[in-house]
Amino acid sequence: MGLLVQKYGGTSVGTIDRIKQVADKVRAAKLAGNELVIVVSAMAGETNRLISLAQQISEMPDEREKDVLLASGEQVSVALLSLALKELGQPARSYLGHQVRIGTDKAYGKARIKNIDSSKIRAALKAGEVVVVAGFQGVDEDDNITTLGRGGSDTSAVALAAFLGAAACEIYTDVEGVYTTDPNVCAAAKKLQRISYDEMIELASTGAKVLEIRSVEFAKKFSVPVHVRSTFGDVEGTWLVKEDPSMDQVLVSGVSYDKNEAKITLQRVPDRPGLAAQIFGPIAAANIVVDMIIQNASEDGTTDLTFTVPKADHKKALGIVETLIPALQARGVMVDTDIAKISVVGVGMRTHAGVAAKMFECLAAEGINIQMISTSEIKISVVIDSKYTELAVRALHEAFIGKREKT
Amino acid sequence: MGLLVQKYGGTSVGTIDRIKQVADKVRAAKLAGNELVIVVSAMAGETNRLISLAQQISEMPDEREKDVLLASGEQVSVALLSLALKELGQPARSYLGHQVRIGTDKAYGKARIKNIDSSKIRAALKAGEVVVVAGFQGVDEDDNITTLGRGGSDTSAVALAAFLGAAACEIYTDVEGVYTTDPNVCAAAKKLQRISYDEMIELASTGAKVLEIRSVEFAKKFSVPVHVRSTFGDVEGTWLVKEDPSMDQVLVSGVSYDKNEAKITLQRVPDRPGLAAQIFGPIAAANIVVDMIIQNASEDGTTDLTFTVPKADHKKALGIVETLIPALQARGVMVDTDIAKISVVGVGMRTHAGVAAKMFECLAAEGINIQMISTSEIKISVVIDSKYTELAVRALHEAFIGKREKT
Repeated sequence: MGLLVQKYGGTSVGTIDRIKQVADKVRAAKLAGNELVIVVSAMAGETNRLISLAQQISEMPDEREKDVLLASGEQVSVALLSLALKELGQPARSYLGHQVRIGTDKAYGKARIKNIDSSKIRAALKAGEVVVVAGFQGVDEDDNITTLGRGGSDTSAVALAAFLGAAACEIYTDVEGVYTTDPNVCAAAKKLQRISYDEMIELASTGAKVLEIRSVEFAKKFSVPVHVRSTFGDVEGTWLVKEDPSMDQVLVSGVSYDKNEAKITLQRVPDRPGLAAQIFGPIAAANIVVDMIIQNASEDGTTDLTFTVPKADHKKALGIVETLIPALQARGVMVDTDIAKISVVGVGMRTHAGVAAKMFECLAAEGINIQMISTSEIKISVVIDSKYTELAVRALHEAFIGKREKT
Repeated sequence: MGLLVQKYGGTSVGTIDRIKQVADKVRAAKLAGNELVIVVSAMAGETNRLISLAQQISEMPDEREKDVLLASGEQVSVALLSLALKELGQPARSYLGHQVRIGTDKAYGKARIKNIDSSKIRAALKAGEVVVVAGFQGVDEDDNITTLGRGGSDTSAVALAAFLGAAACEIYTDVEGVYTTDPNVCAAAKKLQRISYDEMIELASTGAKVLEIRSVEFAKKFSVPVHVRSTFGDVEGTWLVKEDPSMDQVLVSGVSYDKNEAKITLQRVPDRPGLAAQIFGPIAAANIVVDMIIQNASEDGTTDLTFTVPKADHKKALGIVETLIPALQARGVMVDTDIAKISVVGVGMRTHAGVAAKMFECLAAEGINIQMISTSEIKISVVIDSKYTELAVRALHEAFIGKREKT
C-alpha cells in the first residue's frame, strides 16, 4: 500500500470510546500495510466550550490569544489518540503545529498554510510509528500560534497529504460521502462515487457542508485524491478527483442551498463610474465577504444595487451602507434576511447549453419567483424566498438528477 | 520599581471571575510602575480532568503524550488571562513553553529547566506589554513538550525570575505565607516574615505544602528573593531569602509533618558489604524515591533494614523487595503504612546543641514512641505512629516556638 493521511473530525473523537474506535480503525489500516499520518480535530463541543470561556471575558476576544486558546483543543485530541494507539501496541507519536512547523501566514483565526516541515514526520514513519498531527493549527514565522478557521482540520489533512506526497487523503466524517443534494431535504439524494475538484468547490461555496472549500482548493492545487467517507463503517465514500472526460456526460452533479445569506438593496442610486468601489471598498475593509452583486440600470440615470452578505454580518454591512447614503444620494436601503440561494453545479454545463433555461422553467412551474441570478462556468445560483427552499431543491433534483443511479 | 515575576496557581485562576480578579491585580501592579511577567497554572480541576481522560485510555499512559495532554491546561490559562488583561486595556501577550524556549531535559513528567530564551519576553516588556507565560511546561532540545511535575509552575516562575534577573518572584497562593506549622493542626501557628532558602527546602521536603522543593532549590541557586503571599488581599506574606546571621537566633523555624510515607522493614538479613546496593539499586531503577533508611546490626551477624517510601509506591517497592528475599536470605519483610514523619527545622541548630534531646524529651513526655530518626544539619525528623501526628506537632510547636511572635 502507500502513505495515507486520514482525518477524523470532532464527532469521531468526541468521547473516549470513540477515540478508542478510531485507534482500532487506524491500527487496522496500519496492519494492512499502510504508512499513516492521522489528523484530528478537537473533541466535539470542546471548541465551543473554549470560545464560551473567551466570550465570558471579552465580546471581541483578541485574535492572537483566541488562537492560543482554541489550539489547546486539538492538543488534547492528538495526545489521547496517540495514547489509545500505544495502548493497542501500535507505536505512535503526536505532533503539534509548531513541532512539524505547519507554517502559515499571520491571519489569526483564518490562517493559510504556506509550508510544512515534513522531516520529523518522515523519520517517525520510517521508524514504524503512526504519526498523529493536530489539525486546525499552525505557526507563523515568529512562532505565534495560528488557527485555520472553520473546517481547518480538513485543510491540515489535505496540506499534509500534498507536502508528503501521500497516495490519498481520507476524510472521515459522520456522513457516507458527498451527496447530489442534502438527504435531509430530498429523499432522492444519491451518494456520488466521484466528483471533480471544481464541482466540489462550487458545491462547498454554495452551501454543501461536507467539506470546507479551502481544503478542496488545496486538494485541487496539488492534485491530492481525497476520499470522503464515514467513520462508522467501511463502505466506499466519495472520491474527489481531477476532472476527466466522462464527467461531461453528467449535466448536473449536485443541487445545493444556503440559507445563511442576507440581501441588501441600495435603491435609486445615481449611476456613475466608481460607484461599486465606493460601496464595496468599506465593506471589504470591514472584513465582510460579499457573495452575489447585481446592478440594474434604469432609464432615469439611477440604479438599484443589490448584494448578499453572510447573515451574521448583515447588521454590520447595513451600518456601513447607511453611512454612505448621503454621499451616494441613494433614495434608501432595504434588507431581506428571508432569502435562500439555490445552486445547481456540474462540469457538464461547460459543454451543454440549456441548463439555465431548464432551471428557470422548473422553478417557474412551481411558482417560485427568482430574485437574483449568478452564474459561473459550472454553476448557476438563484436567490429565492427562503420558504421555498425545500420545494426548489426537490424540484431541481428531480429535474436534473432524478432517481437515476449516479455512476 | 522593577521587574517582577508573579505566579498565580490553579485556584487563583479557577474561574473566569477569578481570572478577571487576577487581571485587576496585575493591572494595578503594572500601573504602580512595575514590569511584569505572569506565570499561571491550569485552572483548578483541569489537570485532574485531563489525567482522568488519559486514564480512561491507559492505566500507565505514555509519558511523552501525557505531557502533551497536560500542557494544554496552562495554554488555556495564559490565553484567558491575556484576554482579560487586554479587556482592561492593558497590552498583554501569552507565551507557551516552546515559544520562549523554556528548555528542559527529556524527563517527561518531571523535567528540569536548563535554560530560557528571554529575548521575546524582553522585547514584549520593552513594548509595555505584560507577558503571560505558561507554567509547568517546557520543551526538550527536539521540541518535544515536557512538564515539570507537581508544583512545576512555581519552578517556572522562579526560573523566569532567575533568567530575567527579576527584582523578586511573587508566588500568589490561597494561604497568606509560610507558617511555623500547619494552622489547621496547630492554632498557635504563626506566619513567618522571612525564612532562609535552606529552611524552606527542609520544610518542603518534610511535608510543608506551600512551595514545591524544586522551586526553592532554584531560588537558592540563583538567589531569587521569593515572596509567598495570598492572591486574595494585599497583606505581606513570607519572604524566602538568603540566610543572614540574625536567623541563628531562632532555634526552630518550623514544625512539619508528612503522612504520605510507608515504612518497609527487611528482617534479619545476613549482614555483608553491598547489601544496601543490592536492595536500593532495583528500587531506584523502578523510579521509587526512598526517604529515610536505617540499618541496625545485631550481634548474630544479621541486620534489620528499614526504609520509607511514598505511600503510593509502597506496593511496587514491596513487590521488588519480595523478589529479593531468597537472594538476601532475609527472614521476612514487614510493611507499615500507619506512620507519620514529624520534623523540626531551623538554621539555629547549626550553632545550638540540644535540639534533638529536647525534641525526644518532648515526645516522650506525651508517651509517643519514636520508630526512626533522621537528621541533617538544620533538621531532625522522627517517624512515629500516625495517630499521634497532631499531638506531636502541637507539643513540638509549643516547646520550640510557643506563642511568641516570630520576627
